[in-house]
Amino acid sequence: MPTGHDDVWEVYLSGEIHTDWREQIAEGVRRAGLPVALTAPVTDHAASDDCGAEIFGPEERPFWKDHKGARLNAIRTRTLIERADLVVVRFGDRYRQWNAAFDAGFAAALGTPIIVLHDPELTHALKEVDAAALAVAETPEQVVRALTYVVEGRL
Amino acid sequence: MPTGHDDVWEVYLSGEIHTDWREQIAEGVRRAGLPVALTAPVTDHAASDDCGAEIFGPEERPFWKDHKGARLNAIRTRTLIERADLVVVRFGDRYRQWNAAFDAGFAAALGTPIIVLHDPELTHALKEVDAAALAVAETPEQVVRALTYVVEGRL
Amino acid sequence: MPTGHDDVWEVYLSGEIHTDWREQIAEGVRRAGLPVALTAPVTDHAASDDCGAEIFGPEERPFWKDHKGARLNAIRTRTLIERADLVVVRFGDRYRQWNAAFDAGFAAALGTPIIVLHDPELTHALKEVDAAALAVAETPEQVVRALTYVVEGRL
Amino acid sequence: MPTGHDDVWEVYLSGEIHTDWREQIAEGVRRAGLPVALTAPVTDHAASDDCGAEIFGPEERPFWKDHKGARLNAIRTRTLIERADLVVVRFGDRYRQWNAAFDAGFAAALGTPIIVLHDPELTHALKEVDAAALAVAETPEQVVRALTYVVEGRL
Amino acid sequence: MPTGHDDVWEVYLSGEIHTDWREQIAEGVRRAGLPVALTAPVTDHAASDDCGAEIFGPEERPFWKDHKGARLNAIRTRTLIERADLVVVRFGDRYRQWNAAFDAGFAAALGTPIIVLHDPELTHALKEVDAAALAVAETPEQVVRALTYVVEGRL
Amino acid sequence: MPTGHDDVWEVYLSGEIHTDWREQIAEGVRRAGLPVALTAPVTDHAASDDCGAEIFGPEERPFWKDHKGARLNAIRTRTLIERADLVVVRFGDRYRQWNAAFDAGFAAALGTPIIVLHDPELTHALKEVDAAALAVAETPEQVVRALTYVVEGRL
Amino acid sequence: MPTGHDDVWEVYLSGEIHTDWREQIAEGVRRAGLPVALTAPVTDHAASDDCGAEIFGPEERPFWKDHKGARLNAIRTRTLIERADLVVVRFGDRYRQWNAAFDAGFAAALGTPIIVLHDPELTHALKEVDAAALAVAETPEQVVRALTYVVEGRL
Amino acid sequence: MPTGHDDVWEVYLSGEIHTDWREQIAEGVRRAGLPVALTAPVTDHAASDDCGAEIFGPEERPFWKDHKGARLNAIRTRTLIERADLVVVRFGDRYRQWNAAFDAGFAAALGTPIIVLHDPELTHALKEVDAAALAVAETPEQVVRALTYVVEGRL
Repeated sequence: MPTGHDDVWEVYLSGEIHTDWREQIAEGVRRAGLPVALTAPVTDHAASDDCGAEIFGPEERPFWKDHKGARLNAIRTRTLIERADLVVVRFGDRYRQWNAAFDAGFAAALGTPIIVLHDPELTHALKEVDAAALAVAETPEQVVRALTYVVEGRL
Repeated sequence: MPTGHDDVWEVYLSGEIHTDWREQIAEGVRRAGLPVALTAPVTDHAASDDCGAEIFGPEERPFWKDHKGARLNAIRTRTLIERADLVVVRFGDRYRQWNAAFDAGFAAALGTPIIVLHDPELTHALKEVDAAALAVAETPEQVVRALTYVVEGRL
Repeated sequence: MPTGHDDVWEVYLSGEIHTDWREQIAEGVRRAGLPVALTAPVTDHAASDDCGAEIFGPEERPFWKDHKGARLNAIRTRTLIERADLVVVRFGDRYRQWNAAFDAGFAAALGTPIIVLHDPELTHALKEVDAAALAVAETPEQVVRALTYVVEGRL
Repeated sequence: MPTGHDDVWEVYLSGEIHTDWREQIAEGVRRAGLPVALTAPVTDHAASDDCGAEIFGPEERPFWKDHKGARLNAIRTRTLIERADLVVVRFGDRYRQWNAAFDAGFAAALGTPIIVLHDPELTHALKEVDAAALAVAETPEQVVRALTYVVEGRL
Repeated sequence: MPTGHDDVWEVYLSGEIHTDWREQIAEGVRRAGLPVALTAPVTDHAASDDCGAEIFGPEERPFWKDHKGARLNAIRTRTLIERADLVVVRFGDRYRQWNAAFDAGFAAALGTPIIVLHDPELTHALKEVDAAALAVAETPEQVVRALTYVVEGRL
Repeated sequence: MPTGHDDVWEVYLSGEIHTDWREQIAEGVRRAGLPVALTAPVTDHAASDDCGAEIFGPEERPFWKDHKGARLNAIRTRTLIERADLVVVRFGDRYRQWNAAFDAGFAAALGTPIIVLHDPELTHALKEVDAAALAVAETPEQVVRALTYVVEGRL
Repeated sequence: MPTGHDDVWEVYLSGEIHTDWREQIAEGVRRAGLPVALTAPVTDHAASDDCGAEIFGPEERPFWKDHKGARLNAIRTRTLIERADLVVVRFGDRYRQWNAAFDAGFAAALGTPIIVLHDPELTHALKEVDAAALAVAETPEQVVRALTYVVEGRL
Repeated sequence: MPTGHDDVWEVYLSGEIHTDWREQIAEGVRRAGLPVALTAPVTDHAASDDCGAEIFGPEERPFWKDHKGARLNAIRTRTLIERADLVVVRFGDRYRQWNAAFDAGFAAALGTPIIVLHDPELTHALKEVDAAALAVAETPEQVVRALTYVVEGRL
């Protein structure tokens, strides 16, 4: 019987980096035995902030330090988003996480399917992002179930 | 001598889910030993209807239950159609099967080759869809023969 | 104050041709004074069916008569859909209207916004089409209100 | 002598809706006599929140009310962003403004030039968005000067 | 009532340059009052052959003379084909007219609708080109009738 | 030392089917040990002509027999051309070979590199096709040498 | 008789800014009465260097001063190149003019026709750029003659 | 834990061919054990200059010898740039290296991330190229560190 899981699905996990939601999804994917390759931005906060200045030299103005770092990180994030079959974007309750919303907009313009993951309290603030998503989840477990269904066709 | 079958052909089987036409094509492909990977939407009718509410929570209004399910299914169907080298779209004599025609339009806009599969009685009603196809078949066996010819170059 | 209506919006009205829904929308657009240009397929049913054979010569087999006509009509419909800023797709309660669903799929793959217009009874059958739309209307008047809001920013 | 201002430049003003920054830019453009057409999302907060439910009927769950509204607004915002030659994205010091970051990501993926407008305090939080921009301004007046330079070639 | 002729249709007339078929179509379009702008390659055979060497200097080897001319002509032909809403490709009974078939392939890859115009004797030799067309005409008058139908919706 | 031959190059051999030029190139590629996968249209002339009618049923009018066959062949040829890194197009001294020129135009619009292979006598007639190519060869051996250089970097 | 000059041709003049070649082309276009709109980067050298720091504030490090200026200029240059039907790139005998070569590469990847303008001594050094062009001119007058031929079809 | 290095990164090394910077990067990549495949143009200067004439026959005019060679090289360079996930462009202190800047413009238009590698003295002359890059390095070792960070996420 024809199925949909002949190829590996590449899933990019964008957004919040202070909780273990990526590990939870990774563990769920492993347990479910899904042919899913998870990718992510660099989640080491300090490395992500310092990479530009560390590699290419320090900057006096914080703006340019951030700029160098953010552009270096963009090599990784844009490449992985463009390769992805699906982008999961997680919003937490702290920080402004504009990069998560930026990634969602980027994926939306590429036509890449998006699943947004956030608590219900953020519903109104995230309505434009949710409206661009093909699914809105509240827990990592729901994301794993959605991946299982989408890739393997079983609930 | 140069041939055309160096890579696997990915063929998406869209449309009607109440007869065994996908199995017939799968069996024919297997017998012919074609380097063809068949993919399909989730063909378990109940799962396909319920997936959204089952995973992300129930809805009171049928419209939103359908919406959640259809958008979750779209993650699978659009990804597989975009990956496909060829889309086969089957129309049966029951139900309205607007999703099959939707898939055909989607594939047409992507420039992906389409084979439509239906009984001759549907010719007039399906004329716009047939006009966008590179072949119109009446039986799964004809689809297998077309795949054999296209991929292997033998009648 | 900046506005959004500097250019004319081109809106393609796809689908059902047996009621006067296009006229209702046209009348509403006129009354609201919207900078909206409405386009449509050829809605003269007989002309649409006969055009291919009429211009390029008769066919004995109905399949080829339909094929010639449908491909000639496609010159118009695809060009207008590709030009459109927005596609409204109407499904009525009669006929199978696979061409309407085909147009919706075509517009979806192009990334063109879609409004679907149909009675609530069709909700379940049209769930995949509705899921691809940015709005689902039940009456032509709602479409006009949506156009007014989208183009002029007023409710 | 050849110039660059033969056509009107369409500039989309995305983001914060609680201060008069759009009016300041509009006034500056008018004073400078620039061939620039400014567009914007619907900036009437209440209309923007209520439009979906108002036109297509009320929802009990806030999530779906927001969803209907946000998708209707997306017809306008995506169309105007796709038409734009340049997108200016403004971040204020209140609210999370994820839609502004979403628009920036959308424009970035389209390859449309972006100018970000925000106070220096937001530099670190906005570093990924700034990194995708071709200019980062702190005041509406700087945006007007940049437009004057880009379109007319004079400082 | 909504119509399809709000914008001018740009129609590129490719191929054979030794009979007056372009003038016949132009005359028919004029008589029918169609909002159609006809474009064409340079049809002055000598100018088309000599332009490269004439403007940029002579060549000893005929290959390079042809090359310079053909590349200069390509600035015009590709630009006009890319602008066109519809490409009409005419094959006559003399010469090999590979440039006409090249233009048809170019238009096909762009997804631009094609009408092929040729005598029935060429049917077998042109089958791949005809298969890519949305209509196959035998006379300029049929092309005019097709344009009238496509643009104005009347037979 | 970095090289360019990490991936297999897929090379589509389009055009003339009455001499053994494809075999000569295949033999040369084998001898040179190049990581090149050669693909081609169905080169069995009879099968290529009859495939449509043979699989989907006979036609009385030759036009439709050709149409069915040519559209079925297009599934193969367009897919292989779109996959190709390089298209070699061969023109012989007999027949009109409009399909070869069509393929060249198709590849040109996709931006795929083209090598044309023909005798010097055809130079003037093929000038538009040659002008779109990145190389013009007179013998299969030259094509093999060009492939060796392009893929392996050695003369 | 069908012609090619229904629309204005937008021609971007890239490269060297120290001689009056743009004015010569502009004068030639005017004399020939061509429907050609010429565009260009900001050719005021000082303004072009200083614009970023002037508008958005000074920088201590020259690298960032250049960066801000170059990115602001990119809003203009990329937009005008993307709008252009044709890009003329001029290389002089002084300076390295890497931005001119960059523009040529940018236009080449977009598929926009290119005419390169330079003295014969630069032929070897510019061979990759010339190879991507549809014409190589030595004088502004040749560019005007080429434009006249391409747009009006007369030598 | 999700990572970003599931697939090999293809990195094209464009530009200067007279120092061993490519070998230094290759050695660094090897030592770091990165899943990176490095590709490059043909770096044998004589072969690169002579390839066209050598394979397809000599030319009397240097312009055409260069043209044939440059177009043959373009088959390799464009294909490898289009395949690349990242393009590193090196400018040395000798020669004009317009092909390096051309490659940078080509990659920029494709949206492919760019790292530019040059000495600080070239900063002003290369400002437009640097402005299009996501990183600017001064040494091959910095490029290796950037690759290590981007691909493996570690400093």
